[in-house]
Amino acid sequence: MGTVGTGVARLLVEQQQRVAQRAGCRVELARVVVRDRTRPREVLLPAGVVTDDLSAVTQDREIRVVAHLVGGLEPARSIMLRLLEAGKDVVTANKALLAEHGPELFDRARELGRSIAFDAAVAGGIPIVTNIAQCLAANQILSLHGILNGTSNFILTQMEEQQTAYEEALREAQRRGYAEADPSLDVNGTDAAQKLAILAQLAFGARVPWQQVAREGIDQVTLADIRFAHELGYRIRLIAQGRLSASGLELRVAPMLVRMGGPMADVRDAYNAISVVGDAVGRIFYHGLGAGQMPTASAVVADMIDMVVGRMPITFRTLKLWDQPDGAQALCPPEHQYRRFYMRLDVVDRPGVLAEIAGVLGRHTISIASVIQHEQQGDGPVVPLVIMTHRASERNMERALVEIRRLAVVQSPGVCLRVLE
Amino acid sequence: MGTVGTGVARLLVEQQQRVAQRAGCRVELARVVVRDRTRPREVLLPAGVVTDDLSAVTQDREIRVVAHLVGGLEPARSIMLRLLEAGKDVVTANKALLAEHGPELFDRARELGRSIAFDAAVAGGIPIVTNIAQCLAANQILSLHGILNGTSNFILTQMEEQQTAYEEALREAQRRGYAEADPSLDVNGTDAAQKLAILAQLAFGARVPWQQVAREGIDQVTLADIRFAHELGYRIRLIAQGRLSASGLELRVAPMLVRMGGPMADVRDAYNAISVVGDAVGRIFYHGLGAGQMPTASAVVADMIDMVVGRMPITFRTLKLWDQPDGAQALCPPEHQYRRFYMRLDVVDRPGVLAEIAGVLGRHTISIASVIQHEQQGDGPVVPLVIMTHRASERNMERALVEIRRLAVVQSPGVCLRVLE
Repeated sequence: MGTVGTGVARLLVEQQQRVAQRAGCRVELARVVVRDRTRPREVLLPAGVVTDDLSAVTQDREIRVVAHLVGGLEPARSIMLRLLEAGKDVVTANKALLAEHGPELFDRARELGRSIAFDAAVAGGIPIVTNIAQCLAANQILSLHGILNGTSNFILTQMEEQQTAYEEALREAQRRGYAEADPSLDVNGTDAAQKLAILAQLAFGARVPWQQVAREGIDQVTLADIRFAHELGYRIRLIAQGRLSASGLELRVAPMLVRMGGPMADVRDAYNAISVVGDAVGRIFYHGLGAGQMPTASAVVADMIDMVVGRMPITFRTLKLWDQPDGAQALCPPEHQYRRFYMRLDVVDRPGVLAEIAGVLGRHTISIASVIQHEQQGDGPVVPLVIMTHRASERNMERALVEIRRLAVVQSPGVCLRVLE
Repeated sequence: MGTVGTGVARLLVEQQQRVAQRAGCRVELARVVVRDRTRPREVLLPAGVVTDDLSAVTQDREIRVVAHLVGGLEPARSIMLRLLEAGKDVVTANKALLAEHGPELFDRARELGRSIAFDAAVAGGIPIVTNIAQCLAANQILSLHGILNGTSNFILTQMEEQQTAYEEALREAQRRGYAEADPSLDVNGTDAAQKLAILAQLAFGARVPWQQVAREGIDQVTLADIRFAHELGYRIRLIAQGRLSASGLELRVAPMLVRMGGPMADVRDAYNAISVVGDAVGRIFYHGLGAGQMPTASAVVADMIDMVVGRMPITFRTLKLWDQPDGAQALCPPEHQYRRFYMRLDVVDRPGVLAEIAGVLGRHTISIASVIQHEQQGDGPVVPLVIMTHRASERNMERALVEIRRLAVVQSPGVCLRVLE
């Protein structure tokens, strides 16, 4: 009965007729398991349903479907296993749990003839799981990318629109309740990487531990970069991207330059968005609220209805998620990952600097698409130099960066961001 | 075996393994019914499947699911009835047929214990039917609006971006194969109204004959209006809109001014897009290809997989579409339909004209939000006057327009467009 649980209870109690109509039968909220039974609740629950004892659920044979809205890994994992073992179908919103223990939990569910649904675990109110697993089933997904972490997106929007520094934007996110007291999992890309690992399983059949998703957070993004990107016609967004090529699957979470004028650049505040390319359907784009009480509850209750009505057990049985052996889908090595790069360096303001840097890039077969170097504003010896490259491999870029950072004329490690394609 | 049929055959034949995996069993293309068996086909079909005799399908008890890709009303209706009566589940892309005969066909399917799926009938590759019927099942849909006719959107995009007149943009659409030789159903709003009638049944339970959807086409839109809209910060799009209020349901297809900067204004060429507001999920936006061989085939084959795997029969049984009596959802009368309006009038260039027109609007309690009247370019006595109003009722606007058009200073009927909210 946290934020999402309260929303789920509200829909089940206050919209009982609606849920019954769409589930084809009456759906009764039988039990609500909480830590503290005495705490007041925002929703009026039927008498006697609140308990602090999980066995009130596991031992009740009338209960068929359980919304598992427990965060973190433990006791969330044990609770889900107990529920499955008690014969319950489980709907969860816990992406960390699935990204970490998906193979174990799904295997166990299959052994027990039970189902797990998890549309709320990725992109909140956007039903991306059902869309990929069912609506786009005629397609091979070729690529997908999205803004999957609302906290990061809120911070980047604040920085861009209010011209506030990262730390201040983060505090504002915390004030508004978007960011946790410890926001590190959001801003360092872990949350988005866990969601991407789940989508990669669905879309590409890739059994990739989320720790293997290449991952950078937004904490390295400065106001200066946001302004330079703007000048070049881009916004900076934390993008989770998966794409298939002949060399394998590339999975990455990183702040990227997103071209203005496209839909992804217009995703503001705590919204989420996902763009999927299927070989038959072409590109399809989804935008909606990725978090929050009622949007997430919308996804949880849709999954509960799908369980009750019988669609979800079919989907779960057919999808065989995390059922393939490890390594069924090869990861693309960095030398075959091609894209454009944005680089901001603090360089000494003197002749020949650009030639030196361009020389290093050229030796790594990286060609320059555009350069910004403004006239010096203050009177220091150092100026920012911004370079946008043409397509280059991750490997070449990485090697060139090492050399560039060693140059005497380069005064700080600088920033290197990717450009979304 | 027209455009979409060929795409469906291609997926079933060339992606047999993919379809089998997602349907949980082998799916065999058993028969293809064509008018002319001798015509060459773009896809290599298994030997002996092509026939010009529908009874080769109806009498084959092994055939469970049929993709019904026949346009128009007859013989499409009779063919669907024959298929249902032969015990086949039917997947169709024919929105005209459903908008016209949905109640009869769905009743017959229910009597016979069969199912009809139709995600391809609305918005092509965007799986909006499954999204509303299943993914958003926890919500009461409060409103939806979309660009559902790619031909109209292509013409409007051409007019705006190439500065070509309506007739020339239409010819370009025909050259590219977007518009039919007789494009009237696309450009006069009929096609979008039929799709909206289907969505209205799904989202609002409204059993509204598509002829009752208030409907205007894009043939009245001129380059001048596109330019004035641009000056005001809007683009013009053919919008299909349904929204619930305390006074009932409003359903309308019309060219509307759509504010730039929002996602709907950025929908270009033959793309479709739909924005849905649910009471739990909030606003959710979909964008994708609304027509074309493979996007539509993607939707058809997804429905076929849903039939084979058993999800669609559950959905069909639970949804009870067109099962309610007529008038279950009251339509909102024009005096309770509020929105902003754009009006372009050709007026005599002399003092007091604006006061006269503003006077008429004022008497109908319509207040003016902004006015554009440029200095006269030529030397004629007539200049365009553009007025944007604040929110006003359809009824009041209609009455004011009648009076304004009678004014001596107003030289032509002018144009009145709605503003999307």
